[in-house]
Amino acid sequence: MKYTALAGGTGAAKLLRGLCQVIDPSDLTVIVNTGDDWMVWGLSVSPDLDTVTYTLAGLIDETQGWGIRDDTFRCLAVMATLGRETWFNLGDKDLATHLYRTDRLREGNTLSQVTDEIRRRVGIRSRILPMSDQRVATQVLTPDGWLAFQEFLVREKGRLEVRDVAYERSESARPAPGVVDAISHASAVIVCPSNPISSIGPILAIRGIQDSLAATQAPIVAVSPIVGGAPVSGPAGKMMLAKGLPVSPVGVAQAYEKWLDILVLDRQDSALASEVQSLGIRAVVADTIMRDRQTEVSLVRAVLKVLP
Amino acid sequence: MKYTALAGGTGAAKLLRGLCQVIDPSDLTVIVNTGDDWMVWGLSVSPDLDTVTYTLAGLIDETQGWGIRDDTFRCLAVMATLGRETWFNLGDKDLATHLYRTDRLREGNTLSQVTDEIRRRVGIRSRILPMSDQRVATQVLTPDGWLAFQEFLVREKGRLEVRDVAYERSESARPAPGVVDAISHASAVIVCPSNPISSIGPILAIRGIQDSLAATQAPIVAVSPIVGGAPVSGPAGKMMLAKGLPVSPVGVAQAYEKWLDILVLDRQDSALASEVQSLGIRAVVADTIMRDRQTEVSLVRAVLKVLP
Repeated sequence: MKYTALAGGTGAAKLLRGLCQVIDPSDLTVIVNTGDDWMVWGLSVSPDLDTVTYTLAGLIDETQGWGIRDDTFRCLAVMATLGRETWFNLGDKDLATHLYRTDRLREGNTLSQVTDEIRRRVGIRSRILPMSDQRVATQVLTPDGWLAFQEFLVREKGRLEVRDVAYERSESARPAPGVVDAISHASAVIVCPSNPISSIGPILAIRGIQDSLAATQAPIVAVSPIVGGAPVSGPAGKMMLAKGLPVSPVGVAQAYEKWLDILVLDRQDSALASEVQSLGIRAVVADTIMRDRQTEVSLVRAVLKVLP
Repeated sequence: MKYTALAGGTGAAKLLRGLCQVIDPSDLTVIVNTGDDWMVWGLSVSPDLDTVTYTLAGLIDETQGWGIRDDTFRCLAVMATLGRETWFNLGDKDLATHLYRTDRLREGNTLSQVTDEIRRRVGIRSRILPMSDQRVATQVLTPDGWLAFQEFLVREKGRLEVRDVAYERSESARPAPGVVDAISHASAVIVCPSNPISSIGPILAIRGIQDSLAATQAPIVAVSPIVGGAPVSGPAGKMMLAKGLPVSPVGVAQAYEKWLDILVLDRQDSALASEVQSLGIRAVVADTIMRDRQTEVSLVRAVLKVLP
């Protein structure tokens, strides 16, 4: 069995960590959102790639859900003295990843190549692919105008009203090498419990990816990131509303309607199963909240069990 | 009185710190060597500018003679994991300076502008000027071939034989804005006790700087960095030999012969005073070893006393 996953940040990373407990990690390819990549102090920061990488390498700061465990912020403190913006937190250890990535990109390597170098260096056996080697920028329309995703989420703490979400330059971006193949040749595709609009949405916006999802013979199963009428974390709720989707597993099913086979929804949303099924998507009920390593593995087992 | 100093790293920074105890710091302009600037992980590092800046700001790590006091090396440790070269030590706090400089240069600012921003941000009242806004690279010819200065000094620990020293691109570099004016309009010019070949040499190699030293009405006084037949610190000895100069205050006098008025040499070299005088340079004997803040100030007083 070869598994291919579509992933955003924290929720995805937990599911993938559980998955690597159950399957051979080298059988997994992860396609990661880079729509919220951001330049900080001239450094190329890829938050979702880093969260997946740090989590699978056992380096993640579990409390924050981003960055490296036990990191310090000494460089950041001096940057404040020098008058630079410091609302995007970069720890001293974490900086190495961004310095490495920025330097290797400047040397002419692609984001795919650099991402692969980093995951190998930190001992990850699964393949990690950025959705594209071209820059796609997720933009959020607020009453203050269009903001880059990190400005909306981190600088403004996700508080502003969301009127629309767009994927800047997605029309001209191409899937990164290996992305389409990983979908076409997978035994199963797993859509992680990530924000359908700002995590999975940018991946789907790249020409060719939805087509390969629609064309693949492999079953495609998604885990709903919406439980009990609200996202488990993050701003998925207001973004789904802005896109005219209900904030429920039904909205998730609608977002993926063109190609999704199975949706795993939480036990507390079991009443919505029939509505999901009416979209032609099989609904499976499970405990989807990942509180610890054990519940991550339980959810993974429930997901794998529904695969034909 | 307006003072202009030519400076390299550690020795210069100590004298300048002493000077700022005796004169009004805002009356001082420092012209700093940038021939040993170096790229580390894609970051623009200016070791002499930083040593002068950190010393005058009270931030310097006194034990090392470079970097910021009480710094940590967490980013560097991760860089090693990622397979990057780590022979050039960059601390976590220190990194902020290089990130700031690199980002501001990338935004189109000149090294002069960025250097001025940094010194203001850390509360320095003296002006600090790079010798040039163009990149000049000091190169050292060794039995292994030509090495960049930092490769010779840090990576190879200054151990290799020196056959020649060159200042790459010095012919096309121009003095940074304010450099020639600072020399022409000074009441006195002080050449700090820095390596005549690799610290002061690159400054002198830039077209127009030696001419303005030769033309200025102001007295020019140098402090010998060579004491008792050896440099107080660093590789000045083997570099002077490679340039055909004796490793003594006489060699320093010869290096600056075209425009130097007064050379301050150490008491233990007093026997060489007459030989210096025979070059048409006034020789003044003083205690030149700066062991602590008090001896820094004593040396400064001795230097200022010889000025007309």
